[in-house]
Amino acid sequence: MQLNCPMPEVDFNVITLGHGSGGLLTNRLLDKSVFSLFKNEMLDPRHDGAIFNLKGRTAFTTDSFVISPIFFPGGNIGELAVNGTVNDLAMCGASAQYMSLSLIIEEGMRMDELWEVLVGVKSAADKAGIVIVTGDTKVVDKGKGDIIFINTTGIGELHPHADIDAQRMHDGDVIIVSGEIATHGISIMSVREGLEFETDIESDTRPLNHLVQKLLDEVAEDVVLLRDPTRGGVATVLNEIARQSGFGVMLEEKQLPIDERVDSACEMLGLDPLYVANEGIFMAIVRSTSAGKALEIIKGATEGEQAAIIGSFTSDHPGKVILKSRIGGRRMVNMLPGEQLPRIC
Amino acid sequence: MQLNCPMPEVDFNVITLGHGSGGLLTNRLLDKSVFSLFKNEMLDPRHDGAIFNLKGRTAFTTDSFVISPIFFPGGNIGELAVNGTVNDLAMCGASAQYMSLSLIIEEGMRMDELWEVLVGVKSAADKAGIVIVTGDTKVVDKGKGDIIFINTTGIGELHPHADIDAQRMHDGDVIIVSGEIATHGISIMSVREGLEFETDIESDTRPLNHLVQKLLDEVAEDVVLLRDPTRGGVATVLNEIARQSGFGVMLEEKQLPIDERVDSACEMLGLDPLYVANEGIFMAIVRSTSAGKALEIIKGATEGEQAAIIGSFTSDHPGKVILKSRIGGRRMVNMLPGEQLPRIC
Repeated sequence: MQLNCPMPEVDFNVITLGHGSGGLLTNRLLDKSVFSLFKNEMLDPRHDGAIFNLKGRTAFTTDSFVISPIFFPGGNIGELAVNGTVNDLAMCGASAQYMSLSLIIEEGMRMDELWEVLVGVKSAADKAGIVIVTGDTKVVDKGKGDIIFINTTGIGELHPHADIDAQRMHDGDVIIVSGEIATHGISIMSVREGLEFETDIESDTRPLNHLVQKLLDEVAEDVVLLRDPTRGGVATVLNEIARQSGFGVMLEEKQLPIDERVDSACEMLGLDPLYVANEGIFMAIVRSTSAGKALEIIKGATEGEQAAIIGSFTSDHPGKVILKSRIGGRRMVNMLPGEQLPRIC
Repeated sequence: MQLNCPMPEVDFNVITLGHGSGGLLTNRLLDKSVFSLFKNEMLDPRHDGAIFNLKGRTAFTTDSFVISPIFFPGGNIGELAVNGTVNDLAMCGASAQYMSLSLIIEEGMRMDELWEVLVGVKSAADKAGIVIVTGDTKVVDKGKGDIIFINTTGIGELHPHADIDAQRMHDGDVIIVSGEIATHGISIMSVREGLEFETDIESDTRPLNHLVQKLLDEVAEDVVLLRDPTRGGVATVLNEIARQSGFGVMLEEKQLPIDERVDSACEMLGLDPLYVANEGIFMAIVRSTSAGKALEIIKGATEGEQAAIIGSFTSDHPGKVILKSRIGGRRMVNMLPGEQLPRIC
């Protein structure tokens, strides 16, 4: 958290049902928190919605965040909620412009924790360059929620040359992953009740929009698809794309970038890193002719230093994802069948 | 519910954590529910977001719905979630165009109940003419939610002549309410655990966008403000407007439209109907010269038959809301101080 935002003085320490009444207590809470922290000309009129000008192709995406615990190594639910939606916009080929913020707070949440989450929201929004323009706050009875759930919904203008579409897939299109896999999931597991283990692995939550814009500025026409492998991990998302595009995937295990500590943790927990959730990486499916250039652009950014080409699409085994293992064997990689770690985002 | 949508056959009766994994179970659940029910060309690509063309002034609004119980006389949480956001767009002077739908489901929710809620969403969206274009589904552990919470976020083009702005207020601007007050709140109380009483009062949840468009088509220039008095009721919203505009409000108690049964229930429960939540009415603040015409337009629509002029704004007592009672006395009406009935929407 780089922001220096001391909590304003309030005459309550915890959130009560009254703070969700829509009346005096709600107004007091919002005055002291959201409206002072996110101050901008679209939010200030405090109407039922925000109004702005848009023109042309626009992307629109929503996500509710229910991660547990809400504070974790490398971030908190507030930062995650902003980055998640900023990145979903980026995966559409859009910039991050406007965002709504909707809080479902469990009665009894500590005000200092709420403040820390909101500072996380502010800090992440500033980094991504997205503006919080409208919102909502609800409070549910103790035992009917889990501290806080956050919905963010984002709007952004499409890159003028973006043409992100699974139907444009060709035989031989290349899969680039922008960074090390499985980091977010392992960082959450390390602090999950009943599962704690010692590690200094931090979540990779971060905005990817600036890097994606750079990529599109240079090679938009050759970017077929962008996807961030969050829930279900790389394996699940590649299966989804295979199903949608009618092509198959050939993955190279030895090319998968993974932090050594994350790899060890996966081994210790008996997990396949291909199914572990990520928050700060994306996969770009690009024409093979532009793969080298795309990789170079991604590796040129801090958030893309560990990027690698991990495989390609093929018409050989439509709809299927096949992994060529380190020792040369081949195995089918299916979608995550059940649940690996609930409430990872 | 007017839709005839039999539930598709599924091999599970309740929602499990696995349905929120992002993997195979999530895909199966969504195939059988959301994607089959809401089918449209923006949703079908199943990408991280939807893409559409927008031009000009656009309104953007969000709301999370945590109402308890989720089924109530006159509707369910699905219809409420759509109507709530459609109406917030209308209050900005905008039409309802695109909507996101984000579900936070508690593990153990029955599939037939989820289906009924989703059919409620579909039915309300069709009535309002809004399209669900993107969404998200999360599942939280049993005891960490309350059956289902729903976030809807909406986008709509502003009416070309709308100029909704508290700063445009004049002395003498008139307050019209579009229908009977306190209906939604009382209908929920009648079925709230520990509070049940016999009545046939139904929630007034309904879309207001068609009526508001008609009003703006005729007298947009003279519509200063539109607000729906949901949480906190008529009293709280008028206090908010008084605070923002720097004018005061003079309310006429005898003009307030209220259903007799609702009035009796309020008396029985010791509640002031001015603070009880509404879902299907709005307040229009209009120039006095256009008040007659505006009232006529509103009363001409089914959803506005009970409309009435209930007071006006004045520079006499800035920031304060004063009620002239039936017997001629005057009293100050403040914002809802605490909580009347939690989780009313």
